[in-house]
Amino acid sequence: LVNEDIHSFRQEYLTLHPYDRAIFYEKVDPKLRELMYFYLSPKELAEIFETSEIDEDEYKEFLEEMDATYAAEMISYMFVDNAVDVLKELDKKQVVSYLTLMDKDAAVQIKALLHYEEYTAGSIMTTEFVTVPENSTVRSAMTILRNEAPSAETIYYVFVVDDHQRLTGVVSLRDLIIADEDTLIREIMSDRIVSVSVSDDQEDVARTIQDYNFLAVPVVDFQQHILGIITVDDIIDVLDEEASDDYSKLAGVSTMDTFDKNSFSAAKKRIPWLITLIVLGMLTANLIDLFTETISQVALLAVFIPLIAGTAGNSGTQSLAVAVRGIATRDIEDESKFKLLVREAGTGLITGLVCAIFVVLLIFIWKHELVIALLVGTATLVSIFVATISGSFIPLFMHKIKVDPAVASGPFITTLNDVISIIIYLGLATAFISSL
Amino acid sequence: LVNEDIHSFRQEYLTLHPYDRAIFYEKVDPKLRELMYFYLSPKELAEIFETSEIDEDEYKEFLEEMDATYAAEMISYMFVDNAVDVLKELDKKQVVSYLTLMDKDAAVQIKALLHYEEYTAGSIMTTEFVTVPENSTVRSAMTILRNEAPSAETIYYVFVVDDHQRLTGVVSLRDLIIADEDTLIREIMSDRIVSVSVSDDQEDVARTIQDYNFLAVPVVDFQQHILGIITVDDIIDVLDEEASDDYSKLAGVSTMDTFDKNSFSAAKKRIPWLITLIVLGMLTANLIDLFTETISQVALLAVFIPLIAGTAGNSGTQSLAVAVRGIATRDIEDESKFKLLVREAGTGLITGLVCAIFVVLLIFIWKHELVIALLVGTATLVSIFVATISGSFIPLFMHKIKVDPAVASGPFITTLNDVISIIIYLGLATAFISSL
Repeated sequence: LVNEDIHSFRQEYLTLHPYDRAIFYEKVDPKLRELMYFYLSPKELAEIFETSEIDEDEYKEFLEEMDATYAAEMISYMFVDNAVDVLKELDKKQVVSYLTLMDKDAAVQIKALLHYEEYTAGSIMTTEFVTVPENSTVRSAMTILRNEAPSAETIYYVFVVDDHQRLTGVVSLRDLIIADEDTLIREIMSDRIVSVSVSDDQEDVARTIQDYNFLAVPVVDFQQHILGIITVDDIIDVLDEEASDDYSKLAGVSTMDTFDKNSFSAAKKRIPWLITLIVLGMLTANLIDLFTETISQVALLAVFIPLIAGTAGNSGTQSLAVAVRGIATRDIEDESKFKLLVREAGTGLITGLVCAIFVVLLIFIWKHELVIALLVGTATLVSIFVATISGSFIPLFMHKIKVDPAVASGPFITTLNDVISIIIYLGLATAFISSL
Repeated sequence: LVNEDIHSFRQEYLTLHPYDRAIFYEKVDPKLRELMYFYLSPKELAEIFETSEIDEDEYKEFLEEMDATYAAEMISYMFVDNAVDVLKELDKKQVVSYLTLMDKDAAVQIKALLHYEEYTAGSIMTTEFVTVPENSTVRSAMTILRNEAPSAETIYYVFVVDDHQRLTGVVSLRDLIIADEDTLIREIMSDRIVSVSVSDDQEDVARTIQDYNFLAVPVVDFQQHILGIITVDDIIDVLDEEASDDYSKLAGVSTMDTFDKNSFSAAKKRIPWLITLIVLGMLTANLIDLFTETISQVALLAVFIPLIAGTAGNSGTQSLAVAVRGIATRDIEDESKFKLLVREAGTGLITGLVCAIFVVLLIFIWKHELVIALLVGTATLVSIFVATISGSFIPLFMHKIKVDPAVASGPFITTLNDVISIIIYLGLATAFISSL
């Protein structure tokens, strides 16, 4: 396809949506990609890099294929927030050289954003937004909009500022086009502004946009100066990343955002977790080892160890998931934490009772061993109860001390549950060994 | 606050953002809420119900507090897609009576949407969008826009149709306001339209909007007639729901989208899964029971059963999570399924070997029992290998036969892993009992 002439390639390619262009760009043979750098202007290539299709770990590779001046120019054509995302994947030396090669204005804007800490509102905002003074008319605001439209990331919200660039209101393009041209902006703007602070966590920003159904939200400093905006498309990616993240942590895979191309890198992500759990499992094994005498006398006891530990583990995971997800979606606020724990205690008691009764019946019918059935039942009840409470207490506590509850809670809860269920089960068994 | 006069309440309340109004509405005492129905017009209340803050299970309760005519009028003022969401939570009788009480036009629009199957594009689309004929000018398009602005859900995309209402292009408000007023729409519209079919799964629609960074996407029938649009704010909720759903299924909680107010309803969601796993656990117990003789001779064997089963379970979950999330985010396409399985087999082998060697060393150092250490190691290796492969094969197969892989795969994989690891471990132990 590309081997033919420049003209027909450009004609065909440039009518595609940037997203589809990005897919093609990414999948094509590297040799053909080099041809594309001749066929497309840096500005046209920038559009491709704007899409979220290209993986972050590929930025570096692609940029190195290009001539450095071409790459720098391309980056300068991107929206500032996306340009920053690209540069963050590179080595410091590369960043500096690209910034030196590019247009000064663009470099200044990018440098300003590069300083913000990762995962804050500042790190995902863009500085390409439209502001108008309070005392301008709708007509002059529309003129400003028309001029800024090609470079602004969104023109559907216009931010109203006072003489000191402090945010005083917001007006949507919708309001602008239905208003009379001579109306003052001050009269139609909304002054109940919802804004986020530049140091806010990006997940909090995402929830704000989601709750209010905004297309964009302004980012301000502590004096209400507008520094940037965050648009809904960036927020979707934040929410998606957050969900994938929580999910992979529940499953014990360190990160999963991109698919691994080979088995080694996949194994590298999974082994740390498995080794951690094996070490903790050895502690449990140590504990069971204390009871080998009891087990060698009544081998039937060993039959139910995995069942009890497994059930406790499962109910702990359920309770953990509710807590972690509740923290992530901000459904759990400080006030309701105590209530949540009380409720979980109730839930643990009910679930434990139901499961215990079920287990006792099942074992009694199968083995006709009432004592063992009762032993397993008691262990099930207590361990589900403890597992459910710890499954919500531990993540809430982690959250309080600012440790990510999704990653740290799992192994603690699993081990705690194993230890408790085994002590109760085999401890009781040893005490009542004469009745077995 | 509300006990005072209507006037000051309205003045204060109506300047709040609808989302904040909804929070207040939802949290206030039911008695005060009844006062609010007198203070606010149905149209004003509709704005509150538009927000996603009010939980679906509360719709019914709130509507029953209102006078039926008032409720019907309120529903008719909502955007059609949201009105349908509300009505779907009610009994059939209620729906019919509300539809009879409301404005005919609104009722017709709502009825049309009520027919679409849940989770399809049709069920989440709205019919309040703006279309213009191909051969109109920018000026006339802007006039149409201004007129429709108050009722349309978004005016930032205008859909271009031919004489038969077939979608032929799309033009953004951004393009409209920078274009010359006498230009024909046909000349500035984009005719590479990305649309979704009315029967498409809502998650596919969400991925389309996310990939293309759209604010809205048109919904068409098989003849390209435009039937509705889906906006980005609805899509965020779909993605969020999907992620929560996969997450809760991995954790074995049936649904978790809303927090339960009492322990009973929470327990009701968790018990089915625990009971299922107990029944399956009994199968495993049955299997171990076959080896009680071996165990009573060498009780030390029992010590490592939970470790082996647990490790297999953990690696199965890891592999399952990668597959389920890959299916959900469409990262796994048909072509790459075979490659995925080969890669997972490799990953399983590597992970299995590393963990097995680690386990053998640990046990040998601890117990100085080489044979038992090797037995546990072998069982660990084989069961991690099988768990990893089945963890990706089973969800892919489920997806193929159109069963939700998130919900069905877990118990299968857990049980399979338990059975295989125990047969290998205790089977080998029985064979080599003389060396123990």
